[in-house]
Amino acid sequence: MTVRTFPTTVVGSGTAYPGRPIPTAEVAARLRLDLGWLDHFVGIDARHLAVDPDTGAQTATLTTLGCTAAVEALAEADLRADDVDFLVLATATPDELMPSTANRIADGLGLVGVPTYQVQSGCAGAVAAIEVAGALLATGHRTGIVIAGDVCARHYVPEVRGRDVDPAQLVNHVLFGDGVGALVVTADDRAGLRVRDTRHAVLAAGREPGQIVRWFGAADVDAGPRESPFAEDYKAIEGLVPRMAEDVLDELLDRRGWSRDDVDHLLPPQLSGRMTDAIVRRLGVPAERAVNCVRSTGNCGNALPFIQLDRVRRIARVGARIAVVCVESSMWIAGGIALECVA
Amino acid sequence: MTVRTFPTTVVGSGTAYPGRPIPTAEVAARLRLDLGWLDHFVGIDARHLAVDPDTGAQTATLTTLGCTAAVEALAEADLRADDVDFLVLATATPDELMPSTANRIADGLGLVGVPTYQVQSGCAGAVAAIEVAGALLATGHRTGIVIAGDVCARHYVPEVRGRDVDPAQLVNHVLFGDGVGALVVTADDRAGLRVRDTRHAVLAAGREPGQIVRWFGAADVDAGPRESPFAEDYKAIEGLVPRMAEDVLDELLDRRGWSRDDVDHLLPPQLSGRMTDAIVRRLGVPAERAVNCVRSTGNCGNALPFIQLDRVRRIARVGARIAVVCVESSMWIAGGIALECVA
Repeated sequence: MTVRTFPTTVVGSGTAYPGRPIPTAEVAARLRLDLGWLDHFVGIDARHLAVDPDTGAQTATLTTLGCTAAVEALAEADLRADDVDFLVLATATPDELMPSTANRIADGLGLVGVPTYQVQSGCAGAVAAIEVAGALLATGHRTGIVIAGDVCARHYVPEVRGRDVDPAQLVNHVLFGDGVGALVVTADDRAGLRVRDTRHAVLAAGREPGQIVRWFGAADVDAGPRESPFAEDYKAIEGLVPRMAEDVLDELLDRRGWSRDDVDHLLPPQLSGRMTDAIVRRLGVPAERAVNCVRSTGNCGNALPFIQLDRVRRIARVGARIAVVCVESSMWIAGGIALECVA
Repeated sequence: MTVRTFPTTVVGSGTAYPGRPIPTAEVAARLRLDLGWLDHFVGIDARHLAVDPDTGAQTATLTTLGCTAAVEALAEADLRADDVDFLVLATATPDELMPSTANRIADGLGLVGVPTYQVQSGCAGAVAAIEVAGALLATGHRTGIVIAGDVCARHYVPEVRGRDVDPAQLVNHVLFGDGVGALVVTADDRAGLRVRDTRHAVLAAGREPGQIVRWFGAADVDAGPRESPFAEDYKAIEGLVPRMAEDVLDELLDRRGWSRDDVDHLLPPQLSGRMTDAIVRRLGVPAERAVNCVRSTGNCGNALPFIQLDRVRRIARVGARIAVVCVESSMWIAGGIALECVA
């Protein structure tokens, strides 16, 4: 089966982060962790959070961040809300179950009468969102906003001195950050980053999830949660993700007839500074061609590929070839996007 | 802007409900409500629940129900899991935030290497899911499974004698039910229900949401929920939904060149028995052409249009014209699907 190439060009992008960057030294001091150990085993220097880390009070929502990033992307694309035919949002952490955050953002942007689609996803959500947008453009829509992001506020329990810290949750405080990336995509023949192909495959095949994030309802509050909010198998993630990243890159390049040397900008998975560096080395692409943000943003889940694309869009020369690789460990999803900078 | 008609034909369908039908008399007795009043103001005779109503213990998940409905739909379509190129799920109540329930169902069905898309949505989710599936078919995929459903277990707090009942939640116990509908759609030229057009528009334009459903995280459990799990503006819903239903039906018919008399099967919104009857009267379509399930299923959220389509698929004659109308009060979303039974 051959899936046709989408007439999708990225003509604008924007990002949004809540509050100030919180240095890892500050997190380490609060949690009484060794900074040298964190730098060696995690490799993240700072992250933004949509909560006050001392009190847990929420300071931003996915809706407000999504609006900010989308407004920037529209301005970069020299378009207005009136030009938008649809909105797609990928997230693991919607502000509410209903209304969808996609609809909250659409309303915040002043969109009326257009359809929205909110994709529930993790690290591979950006690929799913680009595919949905590309398919909508293929059926006659002209221009859409595609947003991806996460906000961990509802799950963020501040760990303060003098209070017991759940050891299993410690690393999450260092790994994850909040942020949103937004793209404007169009079927019009414009200069920008043209999507040449995507790859998106659920590969669990019966394997246990590598990551679980749960939500609680009134019944859980009433009777007490039945389960922990998170479960990760970091051993399985460390073992499988680099190989999956290599496989999906090769598959993407094979289908385009590109070699690894042809890739001008490689956007690798952004699990942690250390994991990302290891994956880039394994892929054999020169480090200077890799576009990384995880050291300064933390792992922002769905947002990362769009944050990376926002950086590439501002530096890519005409003709540059771009490969996005992401892996979602939840059900072992391999994602990839091949793009080319066109005049 | 003209969006092209999708090459989408529904060639199989299935449904799944948890446990036994729970009569409204039983709910009324537990909540000490007047059965005559419920019959007059709600008009629902029974519903299925994925929880034991006495203890709140969960008895089924969206994953298990989704698998059951999808297996039935594949058998009806005379297809196997190997024939499936993608899976789309629409729901307001995923089992977890990650993995997506779409991926859990895909894995349960034995799908490997295909993409999945989970749309976070309410009563208009079936339209969004059909649009995503149609757009994917338009880009070269051949066959997909499209599922829509909800399970309220995480939010279900059993109200037992001798315990205070939150009056604001009472009507939810009577209104809502759990269930799933699944369709198999194909771009192949086969007999079935062919999608001729869809309508899907967010019409809030700054208006406050008619319905909010929240989720809670570890922080809410730790510090206590910041807000109630639900908020509904039933007055706004009663006032706006019938008019929105009429508008979206007219728009759908105008675009097809169909009159109301041309509609052989009308699938109206299934908010409650009473509201549905009122909407059908307002639309001026003979009651015998309306396809309703809400009296025996309760309001199953995302699932309803597919449950209705499952009934129609089994009775429609070749040439029959079908109009699906749904309204999601969260952000006032109008949804519609026009189909035709083809040989």
